[in-house]
Amino acid sequence: MSTLKILVFLGSVRRGRMIERLRKYIETALENHNMQPIIIDPATLGQSSMELNRIPLHFYADGDSDAPTWMKDLNECIRRANGFLILCSEYNCGIPPALSNLLNTFPPWSYKHRPVGIITYSTGNFGAVRVLSVLRPYLNELGMLVVPAYATIPLIQETLDEDGNVISDGQELKHIDKVLSEIKWYAKAIKAYVVNHPIPS
Amino acid sequence: MSTLKILVFLGSVRRGRMIERLRKYIETALENHNMQPIIIDPATLGQSSMELNRIPLHFYADGDSDAPTWMKDLNECIRRANGFLILCSEYNCGIPPALSNLLNTFPPWSYKHRPVGIITYSTGNFGAVRVLSVLRPYLNELGMLVVPAYATIPLIQETLDEDGNVISDGQELKHIDKVLSEIKWYAKAIKAYVVNHPIPS
Amino acid sequence: MSTLKILVFLGSVRRGRMIERLRKYIETALENHNMQPIIIDPATLGQSSMELNRIPLHFYADGDSDAPTWMKDLNECIRRANGFLILCSEYNCGIPPALSNLLNTFPPWSYKHRPVGIITYSTGNFGAVRVLSVLRPYLNELGMLVVPAYATIPLIQETLDEDGNVISDGQELKHIDKVLSEIKWYAKAIKAYVVNHPIPS
Amino acid sequence: MSTLKILVFLGSVRRGRMIERLRKYIETALENHNMQPIIIDPATLGQSSMELNRIPLHFYADGDSDAPTWMKDLNECIRRANGFLILCSEYNCGIPPALSNLLNTFPPWSYKHRPVGIITYSTGNFGAVRVLSVLRPYLNELGMLVVPAYATIPLIQETLDEDGNVISDGQELKHIDKVLSEIKWYAKAIKAYVVNHPIPS
Repeated sequence: MSTLKILVFLGSVRRGRMIERLRKYIETALENHNMQPIIIDPATLGQSSMELNRIPLHFYADGDSDAPTWMKDLNECIRRANGFLILCSEYNCGIPPALSNLLNTFPPWSYKHRPVGIITYSTGNFGAVRVLSVLRPYLNELGMLVVPAYATIPLIQETLDEDGNVISDGQELKHIDKVLSEIKWYAKAIKAYVVNHPIPS
Repeated sequence: MSTLKILVFLGSVRRGRMIERLRKYIETALENHNMQPIIIDPATLGQSSMELNRIPLHFYADGDSDAPTWMKDLNECIRRANGFLILCSEYNCGIPPALSNLLNTFPPWSYKHRPVGIITYSTGNFGAVRVLSVLRPYLNELGMLVVPAYATIPLIQETLDEDGNVISDGQELKHIDKVLSEIKWYAKAIKAYVVNHPIPS
Repeated sequence: MSTLKILVFLGSVRRGRMIERLRKYIETALENHNMQPIIIDPATLGQSSMELNRIPLHFYADGDSDAPTWMKDLNECIRRANGFLILCSEYNCGIPPALSNLLNTFPPWSYKHRPVGIITYSTGNFGAVRVLSVLRPYLNELGMLVVPAYATIPLIQETLDEDGNVISDGQELKHIDKVLSEIKWYAKAIKAYVVNHPIPS
Repeated sequence: MSTLKILVFLGSVRRGRMIERLRKYIETALENHNMQPIIIDPATLGQSSMELNRIPLHFYADGDSDAPTWMKDLNECIRRANGFLILCSEYNCGIPPALSNLLNTFPPWSYKHRPVGIITYSTGNFGAVRVLSVLRPYLNELGMLVVPAYATIPLIQETLDEDGNVISDGQELKHIDKVLSEIKWYAKAIKAYVVNHPIPS
């Protein structure tokens, strides 16, 4: 069985974002789980990826021929992914617009029927745990299956250094391992079953 | 493969509840999908099932030996279920306490790693659709996998009669079929894969 | 100006509940703010207050003449209150059913146009902060005005002793003071303005 | 008493947005209520207002001297407003990123202690009512007081024409009137009381 492709969405584009630490840690962690990480960073996707989207891909009149190339490429990438991982802070208890702006650009049927895991982080004591309440139903509405495990990393600046190395006792990071294990299990279960049993569309 | 057991939780115990209409319709619909419906009604479970729970099953000191029999039996039933279905109205945009009071009585690991579908209904125009936003993350926290499809039935009194027969054009009911198809697909996919691949606990 | 009456709803009826510590602390704190605390405890209200409600007060056919006395009395008490305070844990990230079962028993117009503050607590690290996301819109739907400040108390067993005395450095409790100040300010502002300007109903 | 200034935030920048119809209707409705509408449109604010924000105003190192002029001006405008009104659709049940991207740009203390009303709309049957569940706690976290009334407009294309004229029987629009009345009442109550009683900060 070929390596599972996991799209990792970065949920922050703010100057000086701490998410880089988490991204580096996650890339290695996914590889250790024999999964292929594909980082999707709203800040570097393409010319218009840092702009508020005015036309989602599925709203283009004549198919998507006029849509930006990066948008069409990413849609294909989403459709072929075996699972998703969301790395995310919270802004005023809500979903960072960099994340929702990007995810809303594509139709729910591109995400449908693949598992997704959530990892939140913050520099404060609560690890952005409140965004869970809004992120879970949102990803579900996009068609994904939110796995039960999730990870919350408070005080990320004391947990990971700039290269993504662990500088704490690593307690909080054990949950990440569980999230990755669940994504892997569900991705494989779905992949195995869908061969002979088409998913109801 | 033996018939899938689907626990159907009734989310209302109010006098004159409309949920009976939906229950009847769903029993037949599940059987038509070759799934076995097991109705769980907070109003008729046992002596204390209509009381606010003071001791969840997993909080009993000496295992669960002192817990009410209906509670221990239902826990076993939950653990053996292949999937779940929630029939639910909304009370002030929130989850009916009859539902949360019952579900909170059991540990998340009893529900874990089984698909769940949501069907909401109301006598008004919005079909209790707002409860979705709070029900999805709640069921997810309990360990279930919320399938993407959901059904919302506005004006239930004009959609189903007291025996659960369709008295409208049935438009709104097509979504129920989709919910049941997805529960079935995921329940089977999980059941097939878990045989040789234990789920990460 | 007469003393402001603040209804304090206890959001837990579980055996061994930690909320007693918080209740005792809050009674004193409200009095120190020159407000009158009126504790509303679902566990001790009346014969049927620990049962899942089947008939909200506003659903009784012939007015509320057949409703339990405690229910009619509490409704009057709610209508005359100047503000509300919710003390609350979280059960699986959701609202404790003891709280929603009680609040749903009364019509939104009984709560309307009075300020409400939220104080959450837990024995863990996050202080039940996730229930905020569902509690705020729920109280708002009931007609109350949720004040901006809220307090979250992690590790309550290390913060308050059984008599409600502070046994920590009190850091987490500073937010409670802010919540009470805001309830007081809004209750007074509304009370002062409503004299000559009836609130739109 | 001078006219109340109400900031009206437009929550959509999508091509062909229906929000223009609602904006026109609201401008007139606010004027009929003797309030001054100030339209805040993310699409036309300034050079960078259509970009994902990388530096919120309160994150600038040396005060806000390097921030774009439109950002500093709008912050002043927010601080001086007497109330807020959110016009908003829902994207996959969530808050449109054009709205959260703009609101997150400013500190909570700029919004604090002013009433806010919510009006949602859609071209479908549910009028984007699901976004309420996430919008209410989000605005509350930003420091605003969400008034109890809200309005939901399904089938907006059959309710208002392109000039904002009513083309339906106007049933759905009655709720808007209630939202505006409540914003006005609370804005005035707060304005009257704050003169001699500083709000706790």
